[in-house]
Amino acid sequence: MSSQPTGKMHLGNYLGVIKNSVKLAKTTDNFYFGIMDLHAYTSNKYSQYFIIEAAATLLACGIPQKSLFVQSHNLVHANLSWFLSCLLSVNELNQMIQWKEKLKSGNVGNVGLFTYPILQAADILAYRATHVPIGEDQTQHMVLTRKLANKCRQFLEAPDYLPVPEAILSEIAKDPVSKMSKSDKSKNGCIFITDSPDSIRETVKRAKTDIGTKILYDPVKMSGVSNLMTILGGIKEMDLQSIELEYENLNRYDKFKDIVAELEYSRWMENKNEIEKILKINACDVTNIAMSTYLNLTNSYNTKFNK
Amino acid sequence: MSSQPTGKMHLGNYLGVIKNSVKLAKTTDNFYFGIMDLHAYTSNKYSQYFIIEAAATLLACGIPQKSLFVQSHNLVHANLSWFLSCLLSVNELNQMIQWKEKLKSGNVGNVGLFTYPILQAADILAYRATHVPIGEDQTQHMVLTRKLANKCRQFLEAPDYLPVPEAILSEIAKDPVSKMSKSDKSKNGCIFITDSPDSIRETVKRAKTDIGTKILYDPVKMSGVSNLMTILGGIKEMDLQSIELEYENLNRYDKFKDIVAELEYSRWMENKNEIEKILKINACDVTNIAMSTYLNLTNSYNTKFNK
Repeated sequence: MSSQPTGKMHLGNYLGVIKNSVKLAKTTDNFYFGIMDLHAYTSNKYSQYFIIEAAATLLACGIPQKSLFVQSHNLVHANLSWFLSCLLSVNELNQMIQWKEKLKSGNVGNVGLFTYPILQAADILAYRATHVPIGEDQTQHMVLTRKLANKCRQFLEAPDYLPVPEAILSEIAKDPVSKMSKSDKSKNGCIFITDSPDSIRETVKRAKTDIGTKILYDPVKMSGVSNLMTILGGIKEMDLQSIELEYENLNRYDKFKDIVAELEYSRWMENKNEIEKILKINACDVTNIAMSTYLNLTNSYNTKFNK
Repeated sequence: MSSQPTGKMHLGNYLGVIKNSVKLAKTTDNFYFGIMDLHAYTSNKYSQYFIIEAAATLLACGIPQKSLFVQSHNLVHANLSWFLSCLLSVNELNQMIQWKEKLKSGNVGNVGLFTYPILQAADILAYRATHVPIGEDQTQHMVLTRKLANKCRQFLEAPDYLPVPEAILSEIAKDPVSKMSKSDKSKNGCIFITDSPDSIRETVKRAKTDIGTKILYDPVKMSGVSNLMTILGGIKEMDLQSIELEYENLNRYDKFKDIVAELEYSRWMENKNEIEKILKINACDVTNIAMSTYLNLTNSYNTKFNK
């Protein structure tokens, strides 16, 4: 999964795609969530100052610490993108509807904007992702990613090393977990938000909200809310009974989650150094994964075509 | 300077561009010579198996050990290229004559082939190069590189951090050193062969050869030939007198240089591990340089445009 750090993130985003990512993260052993800052250069909106804020939001929303990384911290994405760009004809890229529409709308059309579907493919293939929830407007880019995966599989000695990733469309993305069979557990989960902020908001609106629930501590029957209560208790230094009392009339589980996330967000923003440390450690981990994919692909390419 | 490892390198290349690089390397404190393997993907000719061979040739020809690196060992090139690609419109890239000609000649036209002038610009700007000897067919790409340099300078607080590199055209490239004033000594020298193998051969033909010289050991008056004799003596375990005797009738300094280079080449090929070690160490050095350029550019960009 990914989001571009092109503006202030709102916790409202918790519903919808981020929520589904958190769900997905729980079902797969290898889940990565990238803050895709390199893409933001294409729209000249990029600001590295939003990265910490974005990271705090995502962590507060429950994206696992070990899954979160910043795209520009992993130098392999752009290198894999270069390699893939040599496997694709300009004609194929010219057919991208989004590109055509951007040109029509009077956009100057920088080269990054033209080639970003290839970088996007690299973002996905670097992690050998099996599942990629996307907005419907990204269907064509996903076809391109699958095409590139198939091209790579042709020169891989063991093609299954690189799965052809499956798109999970937004209507199904309301519950991406249901799309993933149990046998996928050992594979890599990967979600990318490549939608515009507007279409993300739309996704959020369409996403189902949790059903209203009493705020009661019951770790067996109500493990979710109980977990949130423990977190809230830790942050606000309150005991569980006081929390039950304070939120007695809230009567809505989703609202309670927002309150906890808001507090979690503030807590993270007070610990920016901790965020930086997490992102630094994860940069190493994701670089290792992506590098092993990149080297395997380029080595196989060389072995196959230049004996 | 650079060469693509797309085929067996010949020591004949010693004359011409490589010779001039060796000269240039002696006059500048910061000289880099890249084996530009990423570019080779554009023509589907790349083979990593030629890298060691190319490196052995270049080392045998006198490219300083500390200057030689492999492009793909430095992950920054492709990242800087991505950043630069967002500063350039597709229209500007469409105007490249080489691209138009490749399309006309029935080339399928992969995206890498289309965007490689940007990667080339990154190869040069990453090292903040001041001088880039090129073939005449690369003039337009060099204009593009200079344009990108100027675009970057607009958002740099200290624009002189990134020099606008000067092209040294092939006719002058016969003696690039004369083109560089003494005041350039502290700046970065950088030569890129981006020509096709054919045009390199042409350059080699046009390059002036050294004047015939007796093979005599005289470290004061004939330091060049004496140095070569010492090297040869070391390799063949011969004393200086025996060398004088053996090459008495050769009477040509340039031919003698070829003999030594050939032996040096063989010696390097017997020490592939040593070459790998050199390339590994240099990969760290050039990555550090390129990374500092890349971070300075992207940080400045963010500071300027997203306060």
